[in-house]
Amino acid sequence: MDVLSCFIVIALFLTKAWTSEASSSKNIILMLMDDMGWGDLGAYGNPSKETPNLDQLASSGALLPNFYSANPLCSPSRAALLTGRLPIRNGFYTTNAHARNAYTPQNIDGGISPNEILFPELLKQAGYSTKIIGKWHLGQQPQFHPLRRGFDEWFGAPNCHFGPYNNKNAPNIPVYKDEVMAGRYYEDFEINLGESNLTQLYIQEALEFIDKSVEVSKPFFLYWTPDATHDPLYASRPFLGASERGLYGDAVRELDYGIGQIINKLKSLGIDNNTFVMFSSDNGAATYAKENGGSNGPFLCGKETTFEGGVREPAIAWWPGIIKPGQVLHQLGSLMDWFSTALDIAGIPQPNDRIIDGISLLPVLRDGKTIPRPIFYYRGNELMAVRYGQYKAHYWTWSNSIEEFKKGTDFCPGEEVVGVTTHNQTNYTGMPVLFHLGKDPGEKYQIRNTTREYTDTMDIIGPIVAEHHKKMIFGEPVLNYCDDSVMNWSPPGCEHFKCYQPPPSNKKLCNWPH
Amino acid sequence: MDVLSCFIVIALFLTKAWTSEASSSKNIILMLMDDMGWGDLGAYGNPSKETPNLDQLASSGALLPNFYSANPLCSPSRAALLTGRLPIRNGFYTTNAHARNAYTPQNIDGGISPNEILFPELLKQAGYSTKIIGKWHLGQQPQFHPLRRGFDEWFGAPNCHFGPYNNKNAPNIPVYKDEVMAGRYYEDFEINLGESNLTQLYIQEALEFIDKSVEVSKPFFLYWTPDATHDPLYASRPFLGASERGLYGDAVRELDYGIGQIINKLKSLGIDNNTFVMFSSDNGAATYAKENGGSNGPFLCGKETTFEGGVREPAIAWWPGIIKPGQVLHQLGSLMDWFSTALDIAGIPQPNDRIIDGISLLPVLRDGKTIPRPIFYYRGNELMAVRYGQYKAHYWTWSNSIEEFKKGTDFCPGEEVVGVTTHNQTNYTGMPVLFHLGKDPGEKYQIRNTTREYTDTMDIIGPIVAEHHKKMIFGEPVLNYCDDSVMNWSPPGCEHFKCYQPPPSNKKLCNWPH
Repeated sequence: MDVLSCFIVIALFLTKAWTSEASSSKNIILMLMDDMGWGDLGAYGNPSKETPNLDQLASSGALLPNFYSANPLCSPSRAALLTGRLPIRNGFYTTNAHARNAYTPQNIDGGISPNEILFPELLKQAGYSTKIIGKWHLGQQPQFHPLRRGFDEWFGAPNCHFGPYNNKNAPNIPVYKDEVMAGRYYEDFEINLGESNLTQLYIQEALEFIDKSVEVSKPFFLYWTPDATHDPLYASRPFLGASERGLYGDAVRELDYGIGQIINKLKSLGIDNNTFVMFSSDNGAATYAKENGGSNGPFLCGKETTFEGGVREPAIAWWPGIIKPGQVLHQLGSLMDWFSTALDIAGIPQPNDRIIDGISLLPVLRDGKTIPRPIFYYRGNELMAVRYGQYKAHYWTWSNSIEEFKKGTDFCPGEEVVGVTTHNQTNYTGMPVLFHLGKDPGEKYQIRNTTREYTDTMDIIGPIVAEHHKKMIFGEPVLNYCDDSVMNWSPPGCEHFKCYQPPPSNKKLCNWPH
Repeated sequence: MDVLSCFIVIALFLTKAWTSEASSSKNIILMLMDDMGWGDLGAYGNPSKETPNLDQLASSGALLPNFYSANPLCSPSRAALLTGRLPIRNGFYTTNAHARNAYTPQNIDGGISPNEILFPELLKQAGYSTKIIGKWHLGQQPQFHPLRRGFDEWFGAPNCHFGPYNNKNAPNIPVYKDEVMAGRYYEDFEINLGESNLTQLYIQEALEFIDKSVEVSKPFFLYWTPDATHDPLYASRPFLGASERGLYGDAVRELDYGIGQIINKLKSLGIDNNTFVMFSSDNGAATYAKENGGSNGPFLCGKETTFEGGVREPAIAWWPGIIKPGQVLHQLGSLMDWFSTALDIAGIPQPNDRIIDGISLLPVLRDGKTIPRPIFYYRGNELMAVRYGQYKAHYWTWSNSIEEFKKGTDFCPGEEVVGVTTHNQTNYTGMPVLFHLGKDPGEKYQIRNTTREYTDTMDIIGPIVAEHHKKMIFGEPVLNYCDDSVMNWSPPGCEHFKCYQPPPSNKKLCNWPH
């Protein structure tokens, strides 16, 4: 038994006893899009209205307009999702500079900590078939791979599909089929001027996995996380030009089609009443996406920022017979809730040896309950803002540095809210900038700090924040160091393709400009 | 026979013969909201999702996400709606200054021209019962009143519900019941710190009118145009605090409730299959509304501007049995189309002695056809922009003057698109600023004028604009002169309340700062 397994056994021992058979037949599918914005779905008001399958999913399930990622950047968001814990706890952040976003480029030295519990590990132990299809993003070195962290199967890549690289300064990113690479992006898996059949592969893998799981009569957990809406955008040939909003829209249409295929598969197998499906995105639409039709709806700025455009996510929950159709649920939700919700559905108790930031959404989705809870907005090692009820208090504001802005990087193009979308990190901890997101979802009209509304609200939020800081145990940051020698030079299985010699190790602090 | 009646008879004579009995039983209800934004409905993505009746109307009818008012300000928008013609043709504009919005405050000297044909006049002649409930806004002097222009009945006011006035410098605005005033705002019809039962009165009037029309077996036309979402906002007591987005949201909830009541009335009378219902708004949400929860969704700026936020309107068409449920129709539509659509439904041919800018939407709504057509965006006497297909070309840009902006008037708070939301009137007629509204509904990313896309598009739009200018016959502007003596000092029926002596006439050019 390796250290990790020991750890899990101990963690489970610390929780109260549970039986896997009680709910062994409830399947779970979590669909996580990449950089898709809140405003990209018809159900969320996109003017193009090009997501019929997602809109149908919403009208036959529940729409959650107040749903958040734990971070405005992919890797920390995904680490938080799988651990149920804020990146500041699970280590997916950097202390190289103040309040900087960090992620897992292929030269990152770190990855998801062995001390963290990922809910697929618990599902697998409870008898679930588990599969991840798409982007992992929690570390590309073998010790961090999903098959070491609760997944039986994997089809996808450890890093973003950036490239092509020249295999000299950097190797092309591998696509894995379980333990071994099945080829590399731009070589064996083409992405050519926005055309790629990757989404089709991801759809096919999903349908086959569902079929296979039903055949062996095992409950399954599918983490379906395609990346066609992440730079560089792509769609397969039949979807190119299908949208009225360009390549980004084409990618969205193909993903929507895929979601329709997956839902139809559940129905045709007669397991729709037995399968919990939830859809969301890892962070808000980025500027490159917004320039190409991506939308954060009425929300301010986008990816990389802790304004609503960076972290408010589209979210749909669907479970015929359990979740009443056509609901709009205003519960403040988080991707971290997928941890607790999945365990709740599977009848597995939550680890009680650590703080879990997520909550089970089952009482909300099934019984219509509302659970008061704050939303914490982090950027790197700093708590930037807190939402409670309809109010959001910014303790720090920052879009990006003036140097980056002058170089042309703009996270808030066409938007400028004085004193809010600041280009210097502005400390408002003495007197937070307060917005009412019900009246003002776009964070444009500050509530004056001389009003009764301001003091009454801060009298509630202040103690929540104080308590949060008091109980915080910072995780060891895993995104501080980069080293070109840890890139995907020679992934397992490369011998069937091409292996490259890594350069000598040169571990140094990563540069995180945002 | 008065001049107006003569004119109508002649106009009808010029058109081909028609019979009223052919379609005499098709009722028409047009619901026009006041300053409500595209993004205010759940179906259009408002995060609060507080419009269940409108959302239901959309899902059981057709949603039109590309629907426009003819002007970013109420009076010209309403004049265009009822005449089917651009304000520049029907006279609802000013030449006092270049590209300035004008409307009908109570000291306006002008009103809707007797030379214009309003479609309710034609409906009435064809045997329809006609009623307007709510704001008229086409002139407060008796000669301009709705009962002179095709309406059998009226409950509502000629002007906005601004006030209270002191009845010395200005009288309070009268509320009419048909020919005579039934009282005044703030005196007999209370609007008190955001509380008023006016919307309830407007709902009640609508239900009674429908009942009565059915009793007498006459087809009816109802123009339902409440104003609770126009400054000063109001809602009745049961709706105060009902919304998560403040008083504006309360007003929206009450209007949504009213719409539900009207639809239920049609169903309970069994005339839903025989009644065409269309919903929209006169212009985009204004800054005061946006500060209070109003939303133009992803669109730029708002009321007063020719950016999408000023003129893109929510639009729903509903007619069970005729309009297939659940459709999203991307037809470029206009409030001016209500003219031609109403006539088409009633089987009345369109006047052919003048240019009508509207088109009948019946082939679109009933048969799913798409009709290519441009959208012209005017501000006062200037053609500011043109949309054709997905492209919008700005020939002039302007938000407001730097002087007004410095005084605190901001039509684009938190939004600033360089060279677009300009504070001087900027002439781009030589090289229009071009956007692709499919990819970029927020008008933030100009298509460079060095690209093939730009030249190809302008090769199409240029001739459309040239043709438009060539054929333009400017109407005599009716919004140039103001005179305090024409205010509502002594409306018909004031003797039952209080009549005031008007000051001596002092006709002068109105000042239109925007």
